[in-house]
Amino acid sequence: MEASVTRAGGPAALRFVPLAELARIRALDAPAADRAAVFADACRLNVLYMIARAGSGHIGSSFSSIDIVSWLHLEVLREGERYYSSKGHDAPSLYSVLIALGRLPFEKLEGLRRLGGLPGHPDVLSTPQVVTNTGSLGMGISKAKGFVLADRLAGRSGRVFVLTGDGELQEGQFWESLASAANRGLHEITAIVDHNRIQSDFWVADVSDLGDLQRKVEAFGWAVGRCDGNDPHSLGPTLAGLERGAPDRPKLLIADTLKGAGVSFMEPHGLPPGGDELYAYHSGAPSPDEYARATAEIEERLTRRLEALGQPPLALDAAEAPARSVPADPQKLVSAYGKALAELADTDPRIVALDADLLLDTGLVPFRKRHPDRFFECGIAEQDMVSQAGAMALTGLLPVVHSFGCFLSTRPNEQIYNQCTEGTKVIYAGSLVGLAPGGPGHSHQSVRDISALGAMPGMSLLEPASEHETRLCLEWAVREAPGSVYIRLVSVPWELGFEPHRVERLVPGRGNLVRPGADAVLVGAGPVMLSQAYAGAELLSGQGIECAVVNLPWLREVDGAWLADLAAGAPVFCLDNHYAAGGQGDAVLAALAAQDGVAVASVRRLAVDRVPECGTNDEVLHAHGLDAESIAAYVEAGMPSRV
Amino acid sequence: MEASVTRAGGPAALRFVPLAELARIRALDAPAADRAAVFADACRLNVLYMIARAGSGHIGSSFSSIDIVSWLHLEVLREGERYYSSKGHDAPSLYSVLIALGRLPFEKLEGLRRLGGLPGHPDVLSTPQVVTNTGSLGMGISKAKGFVLADRLAGRSGRVFVLTGDGELQEGQFWESLASAANRGLHEITAIVDHNRIQSDFWVADVSDLGDLQRKVEAFGWAVGRCDGNDPHSLGPTLAGLERGAPDRPKLLIADTLKGAGVSFMEPHGLPPGGDELYAYHSGAPSPDEYARATAEIEERLTRRLEALGQPPLALDAAEAPARSVPADPQKLVSAYGKALAELADTDPRIVALDADLLLDTGLVPFRKRHPDRFFECGIAEQDMVSQAGAMALTGLLPVVHSFGCFLSTRPNEQIYNQCTEGTKVIYAGSLVGLAPGGPGHSHQSVRDISALGAMPGMSLLEPASEHETRLCLEWAVREAPGSVYIRLVSVPWELGFEPHRVERLVPGRGNLVRPGADAVLVGAGPVMLSQAYAGAELLSGQGIECAVVNLPWLREVDGAWLADLAAGAPVFCLDNHYAAGGQGDAVLAALAAQDGVAVASVRRLAVDRVPECGTNDEVLHAHGLDAESIAAYVEAGMPSRV
Repeated sequence: MEASVTRAGGPAALRFVPLAELARIRALDAPAADRAAVFADACRLNVLYMIARAGSGHIGSSFSSIDIVSWLHLEVLREGERYYSSKGHDAPSLYSVLIALGRLPFEKLEGLRRLGGLPGHPDVLSTPQVVTNTGSLGMGISKAKGFVLADRLAGRSGRVFVLTGDGELQEGQFWESLASAANRGLHEITAIVDHNRIQSDFWVADVSDLGDLQRKVEAFGWAVGRCDGNDPHSLGPTLAGLERGAPDRPKLLIADTLKGAGVSFMEPHGLPPGGDELYAYHSGAPSPDEYARATAEIEERLTRRLEALGQPPLALDAAEAPARSVPADPQKLVSAYGKALAELADTDPRIVALDADLLLDTGLVPFRKRHPDRFFECGIAEQDMVSQAGAMALTGLLPVVHSFGCFLSTRPNEQIYNQCTEGTKVIYAGSLVGLAPGGPGHSHQSVRDISALGAMPGMSLLEPASEHETRLCLEWAVREAPGSVYIRLVSVPWELGFEPHRVERLVPGRGNLVRPGADAVLVGAGPVMLSQAYAGAELLSGQGIECAVVNLPWLREVDGAWLADLAAGAPVFCLDNHYAAGGQGDAVLAALAAQDGVAVASVRRLAVDRVPECGTNDEVLHAHGLDAESIAAYVEAGMPSRV
Repeated sequence: MEASVTRAGGPAALRFVPLAELARIRALDAPAADRAAVFADACRLNVLYMIARAGSGHIGSSFSSIDIVSWLHLEVLREGERYYSSKGHDAPSLYSVLIALGRLPFEKLEGLRRLGGLPGHPDVLSTPQVVTNTGSLGMGISKAKGFVLADRLAGRSGRVFVLTGDGELQEGQFWESLASAANRGLHEITAIVDHNRIQSDFWVADVSDLGDLQRKVEAFGWAVGRCDGNDPHSLGPTLAGLERGAPDRPKLLIADTLKGAGVSFMEPHGLPPGGDELYAYHSGAPSPDEYARATAEIEERLTRRLEALGQPPLALDAAEAPARSVPADPQKLVSAYGKALAELADTDPRIVALDADLLLDTGLVPFRKRHPDRFFECGIAEQDMVSQAGAMALTGLLPVVHSFGCFLSTRPNEQIYNQCTEGTKVIYAGSLVGLAPGGPGHSHQSVRDISALGAMPGMSLLEPASEHETRLCLEWAVREAPGSVYIRLVSVPWELGFEPHRVERLVPGRGNLVRPGADAVLVGAGPVMLSQAYAGAELLSGQGIECAVVNLPWLREVDGAWLADLAAGAPVFCLDNHYAAGGQGDAVLAALAAQDGVAVASVRRLAVDRVPECGTNDEVLHAHGLDAESIAAYVEAGMPSRV
């Protein structure tokens, strides 16, 4: 819920290339590469339209890859052959191409990152034209091998084209997947590296340099080619030559591209090396000015190119941009976290911070600035990061390890366990947790992290609801926690709707009363669940049901006596921004079960019960029954009939 | 508990090299390489002693690596420098060297794989001389980087020597870890590949060939050397030369070794390529005959070598071998599973099987024999394996994926989730689950798999107790399960102590009554917990407390109404061969809590509450309070006072 609404700063009117004009481009009587260049630019306009409408999306790599995606779909792929992007966040590029080809309904152009529309990352169930679900990195080649082996078993033979990022190649699974493709002679596979040299916000060379990529991949027995990936005139012949030259081997094409290609100010010209300045167009929507300048530049080029082919300019359609709301007084947990970490490190020399290419998103900019020698950028290599942190902890350091919760809790899951068995202390800070933001889709909605980490021996799991509590959690983790700690951080700025408490210190297993009420108790953690619980309680109050709302930042340790005493026999409703299994509700239930005289039937659960939907935050919370209205309805229905 | 005891077939008397003789070798006035060769052979004898006493252990790679470990400890490592083995299962080699150097108490020679002794894989908490916990593969170089970076931050500089397996290099994390070591110039690191060319039971080249290893590692910017790793005369100079030649870069030494080196019949001479024949000495204890022949050969060589140095032969001490018990009529779930899978595949062409270098241990030998075209050996590359399976499932195949539970549930955790979000069906078969066998130690005791997989959307988790039920679980998974399934298999042959039920078909969420009883209900899954529950109930019966024992193979779905009805108000005790958090007990509690009128306080939990101990199965179950006697005592103490 984004309660207090102000007008967001998106463009007011948006322009798109209509279906008829896309058909005209596809039918152009021109050399294939010239036609593909025009097609890609038209798709660029529609990518901008989609992302501007959605309010978020990855322009940078959608633009760096769109010439490749266009070329493959126009000139290369035959019936039954497969293309997908292993990185997945360039989905707008694929969507706009599929829409332009008539393979997705044109009205889907309106639906990027909306419920029932096109998810932020590819999803086979909601978009059957998609080949496989991607968004968590490094899986692409492995999947290609699975497709080819299955095809061969069925007596079929079809090529598989996989697009990967270049930063993505830092993931171990990429290298893990290369050997057997060569050993088995899986010549059907062509991997294309979208070699735009920028990962998230920084130069790959500054994050974790890839070295001599061609030499590396060739050493694994693959045939390697290289071309200009933004020029179909280079791409087409190189791809064809690579295929002819290596009929028995898997192939990898290093496609040199520009991030943001096709809009001069979105290309990284002048971005200095060294990692002090950020590339600005990795994700997020363009401002009205950026939108206007970008579309003008693409349209002008399109007009010029069409003119050269003896064609009139494109006739664009326009639509009003949807209104977007932004919270008026949100809690910004990640920046509060980053500030607190940098300050704690001022006086605690044990603290070192490790990052996996999410410096900005995990709040580490202040830390890196103040303690550059204690900051370790590991690249997109979570397993490597965690094992490094484990060793550092053995020497007496206090490593604090960062990534999005969905990745941090799962990719290095065994490495975290290994560290926990050593009895050392490492702090894991997972951001972007829970259902919101709902736009990126299920690869990024971390609703399984509590379960995945719940049985780590000696580990405490904490989820703060406010900026103040974020600092308390980190202070407790640094100063008091006996073992490792996972701090679960909602990333999206969020309006609580109530005044957060100001206690000075956390008490393990206990929380605080956000709102009193004798008829029922709503228990949850984090700003998303608590804002909904509070608003739900307000709704119920109007119907004469008074619900207590309890902020319980402890996801695993729960003081059952304290909670039972607080509930005083009233039914308890656990809210989980997470699947039911392994969520906070399990811990609450177990803690209450250990108290004598508490009736089991008085504990009920509201949690995510299926793969999360993609959509706006409001859409997603409502779809999963975790918005204020749904909670109120559930509680009302679950109340014992009152005398 | 291994209830019915027969005399196991180990050797009756065992011989070891006493401390005084080890000291004589260390003081030998001889060229360093000659001394090291004698030292390594003496340590070989003590490795054989330890493993024969323990009844299990990894002879093959302990012997292939022991010349390297000896050389490093005798001639290379300086104060504050680190050595560890990334693979870890060669721990007997390290232990025998540390004992020979007086760095571990000599009496630890008696304690391999025993409670309070030396764990099957290295553990820093129980063995402070150990540098880091290893046993789950691929983490070694990452940890080395962590040590070096921490040292540099503290103004220290010390070398780190990491031993890796060659099969281990199939793990993606190894490759993930290489780049930044080169980019940061971490010259302090030397990785030594124990290049014995056999992984588990087969040639590496047949499992997943490494290709041109030297070229690959050099392409990552590392300096690479090569030598005979079983000959200190080759090892010493090559290592020194590598160090001199690359003062600014990390180094990797390919040490060509023989698995089982030093005992001619344990070396793989004559093992044919192609993977049809197994190497016989990867793990397990020697037979009496093998023990006698092996020690005779080593002793003879030692005598010859000492003679050449003008020294008398070694005077060995002897000790009686401990009696070992084996179950008389055990349930062998893994072989029952393997047979059932091969048979189901006869009539279901969708079934394909994937393995990660544990063909023998996961029961896949019959499947591979009957369906070679549908068997995919993936090597030690679990992430790659699961993503391949996911793609195969998208084409309509039914992939069945295999590894030990500890690895399968965690290493490819994100890949499994990715597959689950695609709505396809994959069967995951995790063996070696739970506390037993207790010998390998916590890297292999899978007591976190239910939690790690518990929140996978649409996934069912099943743990059979008997051979018959194993087949039922697999049949249900193949024929009826709507989504993916995890089958949790106890590997160690286990005596139930009661007649297993013979129902024809599983009913989701329900189990069956193993033993009636009105005073309390013990609920659990799998042969280990149920045998203990049954024996515990028998003990309690002697005290007038009659406990029902319920076999509930469903670890996540629980039919609460059915169970509440069965309990009929009696207290319920959940037994978990797993940590409490996320175990079956959580599912039982949640299911009962959803029933009206069941008292929360009547549900109690017995589960693993700390990192598992290493020891014999009896020792470990007792240490964790999960043996029959502990269960009986817990239930008795927890019973409401009877009127």
